[in-house]
Amino acid sequence: MPAPEAQRGSRLLDREPTAFLGAVVRGVGQVDLQSRMLTGALLLAGLWVAGWRIGLFATLGTAVSTATARVLGMDRDDTAAGLLGYSGCLTGIALVTSLGAHPGTYLLAVGGSVLATVLTASLTTLLEPYGLTALTAPFCLISGVMVLGAPSFDRIWHGDPNPVAAPTSGDTAVAWSDLWHGFFSGVSQVFFVETWYVGLIMLAGLAFAGVRVLLGAALGSAAGILTAWALGAPSGLIANGIYGYNAVLVGIALGAVFLDATVGNALYALLGAAAATGLTASLTSLFKPFGGHTFTWPFILTTWALMAAVPRIPRLQRATP
Amino acid sequence: MPAPEAQRGSRLLDREPTAFLGAVVRGVGQVDLQSRMLTGALLLAGLWVAGWRIGLFATLGTAVSTATARVLGMDRDDTAAGLLGYSGCLTGIALVTSLGAHPGTYLLAVGGSVLATVLTASLTTLLEPYGLTALTAPFCLISGVMVLGAPSFDRIWHGDPNPVAAPTSGDTAVAWSDLWHGFFSGVSQVFFVETWYVGLIMLAGLAFAGVRVLLGAALGSAAGILTAWALGAPSGLIANGIYGYNAVLVGIALGAVFLDATVGNALYALLGAAAATGLTASLTSLFKPFGGHTFTWPFILTTWALMAAVPRIPRLQRATP
Amino acid sequence: MPAPEAQRGSRLLDREPTAFLGAVVRGVGQVDLQSRMLTGALLLAGLWVAGWRIGLFATLGTAVSTATARVLGMDRDDTAAGLLGYSGCLTGIALVTSLGAHPGTYLLAVGGSVLATVLTASLTTLLEPYGLTALTAPFCLISGVMVLGAPSFDRIWHGDPNPVAAPTSGDTAVAWSDLWHGFFSGVSQVFFVETWYVGLIMLAGLAFAGVRVLLGAALGSAAGILTAWALGAPSGLIANGIYGYNAVLVGIALGAVFLDATVGNALYALLGAAAATGLTASLTSLFKPFGGHTFTWPFILTTWALMAAVPRIPRLQRATP
Repeated sequence: MPAPEAQRGSRLLDREPTAFLGAVVRGVGQVDLQSRMLTGALLLAGLWVAGWRIGLFATLGTAVSTATARVLGMDRDDTAAGLLGYSGCLTGIALVTSLGAHPGTYLLAVGGSVLATVLTASLTTLLEPYGLTALTAPFCLISGVMVLGAPSFDRIWHGDPNPVAAPTSGDTAVAWSDLWHGFFSGVSQVFFVETWYVGLIMLAGLAFAGVRVLLGAALGSAAGILTAWALGAPSGLIANGIYGYNAVLVGIALGAVFLDATVGNALYALLGAAAATGLTASLTSLFKPFGGHTFTWPFILTTWALMAAVPRIPRLQRATP
Repeated sequence: MPAPEAQRGSRLLDREPTAFLGAVVRGVGQVDLQSRMLTGALLLAGLWVAGWRIGLFATLGTAVSTATARVLGMDRDDTAAGLLGYSGCLTGIALVTSLGAHPGTYLLAVGGSVLATVLTASLTTLLEPYGLTALTAPFCLISGVMVLGAPSFDRIWHGDPNPVAAPTSGDTAVAWSDLWHGFFSGVSQVFFVETWYVGLIMLAGLAFAGVRVLLGAALGSAAGILTAWALGAPSGLIANGIYGYNAVLVGIALGAVFLDATVGNALYALLGAAAATGLTASLTSLFKPFGGHTFTWPFILTTWALMAAVPRIPRLQRATP
Repeated sequence: MPAPEAQRGSRLLDREPTAFLGAVVRGVGQVDLQSRMLTGALLLAGLWVAGWRIGLFATLGTAVSTATARVLGMDRDDTAAGLLGYSGCLTGIALVTSLGAHPGTYLLAVGGSVLATVLTASLTTLLEPYGLTALTAPFCLISGVMVLGAPSFDRIWHGDPNPVAAPTSGDTAVAWSDLWHGFFSGVSQVFFVETWYVGLIMLAGLAFAGVRVLLGAALGSAAGILTAWALGAPSGLIANGIYGYNAVLVGIALGAVFLDATVGNALYALLGAAAATGLTASLTSLFKPFGGHTFTWPFILTTWALMAAVPRIPRLQRATP
């Protein structure tokens, strides 16, 4: 006989603080599409290693997004698995990186993380008929809009904290250090951190999620570097992971999460990683005139496009849930 | 026993001119999502008070859009309720405001209003599966495209009639007159009119649609002003209603039309009004490089996003039809 | 009794080379929405007449796209009808025209044509619920992204091969030669070729697809020229077909393929041709700040918008399949 509603409610309440912390840690892991606690914990550790500002805003954003899901009474399993927290994590990081750690940025991070959870619900409604998920699009939309609008507001805008924009041209001679730096930085750039040892910590976290996830991330990063080098990208952008992070995410998503483990699927994931790398340059050029940000759009658009095609390609197989 | 089809047809024909005029007046009201004749009449009166050009092009656009729906044999109830006319109303106003009252503008307003009705049908097809409606998107698309293309055509383009663009920066000290001007101008800016007493007439029209509609518009306007002030917007843009009109529309849509009257829903509507206000700055910056126009996109995108989320948020309730 | 699977497979294999060539020729025809072999052959002939680069890249792109569909095991009937090859045809032409015939361009054309086939599948998934088809959107997306990203990569970018951009302003006095040049160039500009006798060859090809197709293309071209002249477009852009090719495609799509042969439908197709002509100027202005390309977007967006409206317009009838 099931426990009466009130009793279950009070029991849940007892476990609430721990459950909430677990959902937040898992939320950080979901940026890389992983729900394992240990993976989330190592990713979060990497973010604090990258700097207290990054660590704090990532934690704040994930916590606010997760709390919003609770307050709005949204799906408990999704919330517990971190599926309603990851967009807040990236929103927090993107805002402090783009606007600096001013009082207004804290407020914007809170507001943005609330809206990120709402937008996750909206996109789920819109994408579900096609068998697609929101990925990091709620974050990209919210942060893109906020960073775009920020200079119009005196209490938000205190000048660009990164006055030297990432170049899209430069020297293309690639040294060995560019390659291995780029390999790890690609993993950390998923969180907009370009420190190779943060990428190493994060890759260790992904290893705990399983060998396929590790392989997906590693081969994705390698495919991104190879594509960028073959097309003739500036070595500086290869070294700091700019041409790798979308490939890493596509590698994980197509290589280890959404498709079965077959040779055909693996080749398809590598095609996706290469496409996302090229798309990174295009979107950066596209967003330049109005000061927009590429964020993880190349990963999102590539994954949506390639997953939407799968039902019509008999050689490919969706992962069996 | 129902009257034979032929007889009912002839009777309808008898009433056609009156019915058509009613549909046009209601069409003006539907810009604010209201079908009540008296509301439409006061909104239309406000437009003529704002100037004969505005009044004429609003009337012309609504009439052409409504007539198009008739000629194409589209849904009679929707047509009678003004649901196929409101996009023509805004298209007419936007074209005369952006291009001046030249002969070519009259032609463009007619063509644009015809296409606005067609686009309303298209968007209804695309949005219906998600339980969303077209809102003012047909107008925004048609007018945006026309204003963007206008300078390429000699017979259309006679120079910018408003050479001084609305600034996105300026003094942020807010006076009392800025606040009450902005409160009413936000209501009239829905129709791209920045005259406070036109806003007052329109608010009176909205009052006839019911207390919830009045409250939605008034609290929306207040929320927009408050958000813009809190973020540090230039006081000039607050006073002329630029940061209020999208919040007014969101206040009406979420606060009085699409959701039930609960405290949770009201807070959600206020969140939406604040989000639309911030989004106004972002879209203005986005459109600036190619001379695009913000129109009512912030209202549309915010309302679509927030309404699409509702099915996944148990704390919120859609309005029971 | 049907032949055993293995036997049928081997028979198909025997016919493979011929079947593949047929699919490629039909693929060229599908750019104009036609599956007839003779039509495809004349269009392809026109492309080789326009120059070996155009002919080669068009053939290469169509062949790679078609081969991709085979390798991925996609729908055999669609592949044989050229429905998975046409986007590769335009991708090849657009890349050689925008980037020049460098080694990197060949590679990009191969990669782009592979992705065009994948994207055709994606868009089919996304559009099918609305009764819409992908049209040339896979090409526009892939080529747009590649041309946008190209300047970021040293091995791809060798300077703009067409340094003088198409103007959107200029003399508007129209001579007789502008009109008939424009009439034929509008047909060839569908493939980004502005040579009037190539347009003549192509129109002959379309004539073999039936009188409605010929009429759709011819009246579409005329409607485009008329609209551009009426709006006051520069005569140079009328003469080289820039204001005609989208109208030609809309004329074929709405006038001869997707709608039945009625007077109402024909008028609707002409409205579409005029709208696509105006939209061409808007999108060219829209894409200018970030060096984007208009391609066949005006045709695609107009056709999607007008076809999505049809279910709600009783006066119009979809073609019975």
